[in-house]
Amino acid sequence: MSSVDRVIRGNEAWSRSFDRGDLRAPPRLRAAVVTCMDCRLDPLRALGLDLGDAHVIRNAGAVVTDDVLRSLVISHWELGTVEALVVGHTACGMTAFTNETLRRKLGSSGLDATLDFLPFRDVEENVRAGVGRILASPLLPAPYAAHGFVYDVATGGLTPLA
Amino acid sequence: MSSVDRVIRGNEAWSRSFDRGDLRAPPRLRAAVVTCMDCRLDPLRALGLDLGDAHVIRNAGAVVTDDVLRSLVISHWELGTVEALVVGHTACGMTAFTNETLRRKLGSSGLDATLDFLPFRDVEENVRAGVGRILASPLLPAPYAAHGFVYDVATGGLTPLA
Repeated sequence: MSSVDRVIRGNEAWSRSFDRGDLRAPPRLRAAVVTCMDCRLDPLRALGLDLGDAHVIRNAGAVVTDDVLRSLVISHWELGTVEALVVGHTACGMTAFTNETLRRKLGSSGLDATLDFLPFRDVEENVRAGVGRILASPLLPAPYAAHGFVYDVATGGLTPLA
Repeated sequence: MSSVDRVIRGNEAWSRSFDRGDLRAPPRLRAAVVTCMDCRLDPLRALGLDLGDAHVIRNAGAVVTDDVLRSLVISHWELGTVEALVVGHTACGMTAFTNETLRRKLGSSGLDATLDFLPFRDVEENVRAGVGRILASPLLPAPYAAHGFVYDVATGGLTPLA
């Protein structure tokens, strides 16, 4: 079955039993989670969150890019969130390559990339840098808060960063 | 309870019963989902996906930005995905403001923003533009595929775009 057929069929089961309840656009917890696209992560379940509780922003690496800041600013100013939880994870694929190795791989397929793919060596350091970037954003002024965590994909455990 | 305490407590329950099974970094379905940060969306449940099936990339609006393309290129070249499913949704907050109204709101708090927040008027059109941007990316050459959908936050239903 193709992925398209798979998600259409998967959605039929979901929509049959769907109860919108009191779902509203502004997140109940007034929080936004920033995490990685990794397929071993289910941020809602892993953090004990319900539908409606939080915004969830995900990209390769949970890197706080300009696009993440754009999303957080909209989340804060249009939908009332007041803090960001940045969640990196162990064994992140972003530590398994460098710009050089990925560019070489693309090059050997005849593709020319000068893009910075934002890989990193240290997951904790990347989370701390992301928290710092959020706290330094002039468009998310205090008391807007940000907290860092590392999720362990082998144990399911979450460690807050001091 | 603060959001930090809430997710730490939520994770204790999750990690106690966590079974990593055969979870691996390369997604089983070889697909990446691109969707919105909206709190009314639980992309795994709504699409009938399991942990390990797909990458999930989320930002404000499911807009295919340069950062989404960065993530998809890593997803494809480093982790073997071969298609993207772009999922917009009804009642998206991105249709409820414009750059002008948001900049005015920031301005009245003394903040100066010239940023393009990438709002849009038509959800379908935004999804189609995103699919087009992916298909046109030189770093995601054919047969890399992309498909568009709109999720209805009131009914839980998913509509594929022709």
